[in-house]
Amino acid sequence: MKVNGTHYHSIWREAGSHSVRIIDQTRLPHHFEIIELMSLEDACLAIRDMQVRGAPLIGATAAYGLALAMHEKPDENRRASATQYLLDSRPTAVNLQWALDRINQQLLQVDSSGWKEIAYAAADRICHDDIRINEAIGRYGFSIIQDLWRQGTKEESVNILTHCNAGWLATVDWGTALAPIYKAHDAGIPVHVWVDETRPRNQGASLTVWELTNHGVPNTLIVDNAGGHLMQIGKVDMCLVGSDRTTANGDVCNKIGTYLKALAARENDVPFHVALPQSTIDRHLTSGVEIPIEYRDTDEISHIKGINEQNLISRVLITLPHAGALNPAFDVTPSHLITSYITEHGITPGVSGTTGLLFPPD
Amino acid sequence: MKVNGTHYHSIWREAGSHSVRIIDQTRLPHHFEIIELMSLEDACLAIRDMQVRGAPLIGATAAYGLALAMHEKPDENRRASATQYLLDSRPTAVNLQWALDRINQQLLQVDSSGWKEIAYAAADRICHDDIRINEAIGRYGFSIIQDLWRQGTKEESVNILTHCNAGWLATVDWGTALAPIYKAHDAGIPVHVWVDETRPRNQGASLTVWELTNHGVPNTLIVDNAGGHLMQIGKVDMCLVGSDRTTANGDVCNKIGTYLKALAARENDVPFHVALPQSTIDRHLTSGVEIPIEYRDTDEISHIKGINEQNLISRVLITLPHAGALNPAFDVTPSHLITSYITEHGITPGVSGTTGLLFPPD
Repeated sequence: MKVNGTHYHSIWREAGSHSVRIIDQTRLPHHFEIIELMSLEDACLAIRDMQVRGAPLIGATAAYGLALAMHEKPDENRRASATQYLLDSRPTAVNLQWALDRINQQLLQVDSSGWKEIAYAAADRICHDDIRINEAIGRYGFSIIQDLWRQGTKEESVNILTHCNAGWLATVDWGTALAPIYKAHDAGIPVHVWVDETRPRNQGASLTVWELTNHGVPNTLIVDNAGGHLMQIGKVDMCLVGSDRTTANGDVCNKIGTYLKALAARENDVPFHVALPQSTIDRHLTSGVEIPIEYRDTDEISHIKGINEQNLISRVLITLPHAGALNPAFDVTPSHLITSYITEHGITPGVSGTTGLLFPPD
Repeated sequence: MKVNGTHYHSIWREAGSHSVRIIDQTRLPHHFEIIELMSLEDACLAIRDMQVRGAPLIGATAAYGLALAMHEKPDENRRASATQYLLDSRPTAVNLQWALDRINQQLLQVDSSGWKEIAYAAADRICHDDIRINEAIGRYGFSIIQDLWRQGTKEESVNILTHCNAGWLATVDWGTALAPIYKAHDAGIPVHVWVDETRPRNQGASLTVWELTNHGVPNTLIVDNAGGHLMQIGKVDMCLVGSDRTTANGDVCNKIGTYLKALAARENDVPFHVALPQSTIDRHLTSGVEIPIEYRDTDEISHIKGINEQNLISRVLITLPHAGALNPAFDVTPSHLITSYITEHGITPGVSGTTGLLFPPD
C-alpha cells in the first residue's frame, strides 16, 4: 500500500541485493525509517525488538533471516544454529516456525551448495504467497463492504470499526482485516474506519492510523472504550478484525479487547466479520478455551511510549511505580458472535449458536 | 480514607481557618501534594484545571468557592458574579449547579451581613452530607460483597472489577463504587479489585490504583480491553461502578466503556452493580438515550500524561500529530444489564427486560 504516494511492502529485496529492507515499526507513526537487514543477526534483532511484528511479517522476516545465514555460510552447522536462533527470537510466533520449517524442508532435499539460492527463492515465495492470499481476502471482503454500501444511503460512508493492526504492516502487503477496506477505497466506495487505539501497545493509534492515513483512507481514532457507544448510536455499519488463531469450531483468538467489541456488535445488530488466512486456522483445536493465552510484561500497561515535546521518543509511567498489573495479550471471541469468516478461499458464514465444526480437520 | 496511615478527606478546612485544602489530583499518583485554596479564584482554578474532579467533590469545592467569595466581600454583586464564575468553571457539572443553588437559597433568606457564616456552614454541611451518603452506600454495598464471600471458598478473595474512579477522591470521603469495597476490606473480608485503567484520562491507573493501594486494598491494574477475558475465565465475581446520571427507567450514564463491561458481565453471569447517590437520579428522563453525551477534546486521546525518566510530569503524543479522533466521555448502560442499584437508601434490584420506571418522579 502507499506511503507518500509510493507503493511499499513491509519487507522487500532491492533487485540484485542479498540484503533485505524493512520499515522500522517501532518508530511509527512518528518516524518513517527503512532499515537494511544485512545478516542473520539483523533479522533476529528486528523480530525480537519488534521492528517487524504481525504473524505473516514475522514469518517472512525469519525466512529472509535464514537466507542471509545461508548467504554467509551455507553449511549444516550454520543452518541448524540459524534456525534455532530465529526460533528463539520470538518464541510464541507460530508463523516463524512455519516459515522456517517450509524452507528447511526444501534445503534438506539438496546439497548445501544450492542452499543460498533455494533459501532466497523460498523466502521470496513466502512473501509472494502472503500478498496473493491477502489480496484474495481483500477481494472477498470487498463484496461485503460493497453490499453494505448499496444498502445504505449513497451519501454516507460505510463505517467500519477495526481493532489492533491487521493491515499491510502486519503482513507483506494488503493486510488481512484492512485488505477489504483498501479494496473498497481503491474502488471508489466511500469507507471510513473507526480505529480502536488498542491498549496496551497502541497498534491502532500508532500503526493502523498511520497506514490508513498514508493510503488516503478516512479514519478516526477512538479509545477502546468508545466502540460500544458508537454502535449504540448507529455509527458503526460493520466490525472487521483479524485473527491470531481460529479453532475448528470458529472461535477466534485475537488481540485483547476483540471479544468486548463482538459482544457490543451482537447487542446492536452490527455485523462482526473476521478476516484470516487459512493458515491461521487450528483445525485440531475444537474450542477457543483450549488456546493458551499469552500474558505479557506489565511494563506495557504501566508505561506508554510516544514522542515528547522535544520530538523525541519517550516513555512515561502512568500509574504507581510498582502497581500490580496483569497483561493478557489475547482473548477468545466465541463463534456465535461472529457473522462471517473471510479467508482467501471465500466467505464462511458463522453458525450462530451451534457447536458444529466450521473448519474440520482435513 | 487513608494515605500513609493518616485519614484524609479530599477537601477540608483546618480548624479556625477560612481557607480550604485539597489534594492536587492532577499530580497523582506521582506526587501527593496538598493545595490551600485562599480565594474564589483559587477554587475556580482547581475546578477548571481538574485539581478536583468527580461530581460530589466539584460541588463541595464550588460551595467553598462561594464561601471564600463571601469571606472576601459579602455583597449582592459579589454573590451573583461569584456564582456565575463558578458555574462557568466546568459547565457540564450538574453537582456544581446543585451546590450553588443550595447555598444561594439560604443566603437570599437573610441580610448579607450573615452571608459569610451561612456560606461556610452550608459548604461544611454539603461535605458532611456527602460523607454520610457515601458511608450509607458503603454499608448497603458491603452486604452484597459479604454474601459473595460467604458463597465462595473462604481462601479466595472476592474479585471486584471497577471502571474509572468512583472512590473517595471523587467525593469527600468513601466514594460511591469504592465505599462498599473499603467497608469490606476494613471488616476483614479479603477483597481484590481489578482496576480498569480507563482511557482516555486514565483515572483508574492514576487515581483508583493510588487510593486503593494507599488504603491497603489489594488491586491489579488492567487495560480496559482485558475485563471481558477475565470474566470469561472466571476471575471476576462482581462488577461495581459509579454513575454520573441514572434515568427513571434505570439506565446508567457513566464513564465511557462501562457499557462494554456490563455486556461482558451479562454474557458471563457476573453480577453488575451500580453505586450511586440518589441525587444523581434524573427522575424526569425516562430513558438513557435522552442523555446528551459530552464529547471532549481529542488531545485526551492523542496525548498521554505520565512521568518521564527524569521523574517529571510529561505528555507524549501516541499517534500522528493531526490524526482525526473522537472522544465521547460517557456511555449509557441500559437497565436490563444491571443487577442492582446501591444508593444511600438501600439496594434496588434491576428489573431485567422490563420498561417500567425503577425511579419514578417523586
